[in-house]
Amino acid sequence: MAFRALVDAPGLHHSSRVPALKIFCDARLDAEALERLRAGLAPHELLLAREPGHVLNVNAPDATIAAADVALGQPAVESVLGAPRLRWVHVTSASVTRYDTPAFRSAAAQRGLLLTNSSTVYAEACAEHAFAFLLAQARQLPRALRSRAAGGSPEWTALRGAMARLRGGRVVILGYGAIARRLVELLAPFAMAITAMRRHPRGDEGAPAVAPDDLAPALAVADHVINILPHNAESEHFVSRERLAQMKRGAVFYNIGRGATVDQDALAASLHAGHLAAAWLDVTEPEPLPEGHVLWAAPNCYITPHVAGGYPGELLVLVDHFLDNLRRYENGSPLKDRVM
Amino acid sequence: MAFRALVDAPGLHHSSRVPALKIFCDARLDAEALERLRAGLAPHELLLAREPGHVLNVNAPDATIAAADVALGQPAVESVLGAPRLRWVHVTSASVTRYDTPAFRSAAAQRGLLLTNSSTVYAEACAEHAFAFLLAQARQLPRALRSRAAGGSPEWTALRGAMARLRGGRVVILGYGAIARRLVELLAPFAMAITAMRRHPRGDEGAPAVAPDDLAPALAVADHVINILPHNAESEHFVSRERLAQMKRGAVFYNIGRGATVDQDALAASLHAGHLAAAWLDVTEPEPLPEGHVLWAAPNCYITPHVAGGYPGELLVLVDHFLDNLRRYENGSPLKDRVM
Repeated sequence: MAFRALVDAPGLHHSSRVPALKIFCDARLDAEALERLRAGLAPHELLLAREPGHVLNVNAPDATIAAADVALGQPAVESVLGAPRLRWVHVTSASVTRYDTPAFRSAAAQRGLLLTNSSTVYAEACAEHAFAFLLAQARQLPRALRSRAAGGSPEWTALRGAMARLRGGRVVILGYGAIARRLVELLAPFAMAITAMRRHPRGDEGAPAVAPDDLAPALAVADHVINILPHNAESEHFVSRERLAQMKRGAVFYNIGRGATVDQDALAASLHAGHLAAAWLDVTEPEPLPEGHVLWAAPNCYITPHVAGGYPGELLVLVDHFLDNLRRYENGSPLKDRVM
Repeated sequence: MAFRALVDAPGLHHSSRVPALKIFCDARLDAEALERLRAGLAPHELLLAREPGHVLNVNAPDATIAAADVALGQPAVESVLGAPRLRWVHVTSASVTRYDTPAFRSAAAQRGLLLTNSSTVYAEACAEHAFAFLLAQARQLPRALRSRAAGGSPEWTALRGAMARLRGGRVVILGYGAIARRLVELLAPFAMAITAMRRHPRGDEGAPAVAPDDLAPALAVADHVINILPHNAESEHFVSRERLAQMKRGAVFYNIGRGATVDQDALAASLHAGHLAAAWLDVTEPEPLPEGHVLWAAPNCYITPHVAGGYPGELLVLVDHFLDNLRRYENGSPLKDRVM
């Protein structure tokens, strides 16, 4: 790491041997998190964007970044590439969609630009959200919470007959990163047969892993297909009409990745046809879906508004995660959640 | 076991050395489960009740039981005590409420009557249902599924701020049997601080266990209080106004045990006062609650109609569980899920 040389001035105190960095931030933090950031990054200098956006936003270009060595938030791609001093971008979401292009990767590689994300910050909450979807579907919560059926009545018998147990079921997870890894841990006591799909299986996934080309047999037997794919050119509409058809009748689809990785018209059609039994989506394209979108009318389609990563104090954890990486950057240690 | 002597006639085939038992059944089974039962209990004789009830029902007295050696279902207490040949009752629910009285226990002990239940049959489904409640509350599913908020909007920020993670939270489980044991296993990856309450802690609970008298300190710090108590004279309104007040403000109460173990007026008052943040109930007293009951109007009160134990094929598993116990009874082996 190039920065390493600058901080290896032996005999000096930390605050004096580290040259002050200019750190641009366009994440909209609350007062407590902003104070935590400001205090934690001293002696470096904080450059605040004029119009910070929420941590998952795509932000507009902001000229302030031009003076920065480090950026925290969701800076526009053209701003990043146009900022001459910038050496490291720390993205405040779990994915890095807009930077995940061959052009950006190539530019980043050429100038030694580091890119990290916040997937560690959101992994537990996202895995728990996916798990909540799995169990709410298995235990038929939307239907059961509406029912006032008497025990033994036909309505009750039908409802009870629609209940399922997760134990022993078959799961396919599309996209294997920090969230999937945690989800596999959470599912362990349920003795499910889990297959993880990732671009390049490594054998250390904690579950049998397959490449996209080998996915079809797993889809054909899965009770649950959980999509955690990031969005890039390769994953656009990955869950296509063809792949939906490869899933077995009665399977359930879950999406806590990105909406654009799904052919939503094909998903709605599959639900209408009764091929998929249900879909649980925390992400859609766009967000929120416009009034009248086909998915609002699709049967057994349950949508939460991109809140899977949320939990109390998440902004403080986000800041702490960045500050931890900042210390690593200063020391020349490997950064956490590094993508490029 | 008294029956043991009858079957120890060496050199005879199984079917000939076991005298035919008369097995009374008042559980309403579907055709497949009834056939499984009939085939599985041969050469014993099946005596069907005139009006079988669903497996959780309290059934009316039925004179057919008078000739029976074994009863399967939910026979009326007076029928059981009045049946001269009866040696073993296998109850089709996870609890044995109406038999759990000093008078019945004493009568059963006097005549050597065995009582078993079906808790093994329902443990997984009930534990998963409780878990579904926990995660649906943590991830605010009822509210999130209604929202179409745009990312960063005040509604979205409020919703996302209300989200929680289970990980690291504090749990109290009231009543420690097969369901609680499984729930503790399922919760293991969440690193929660679990305290189990049971009448007589044994130290093998898989979580720190306390007796009822030592419960208050655990209630005072619990984020989640999960009630799995059976109903008997001792547990009637166990979750009283006083115990609800001992729970910390913002705690969530869950009930998959029996409704009569809760002071429901006090529960509704606690929800109205905002002391408890929410209640998730699969059981109430009575079931279903009548129109206009206070719990229907209590804020953040979510009710499913006693379906926690349900899953596909549960009647077949129920029959298999009974037949497994019948083989044990024939062989003089210890019965599974024995209560008396």
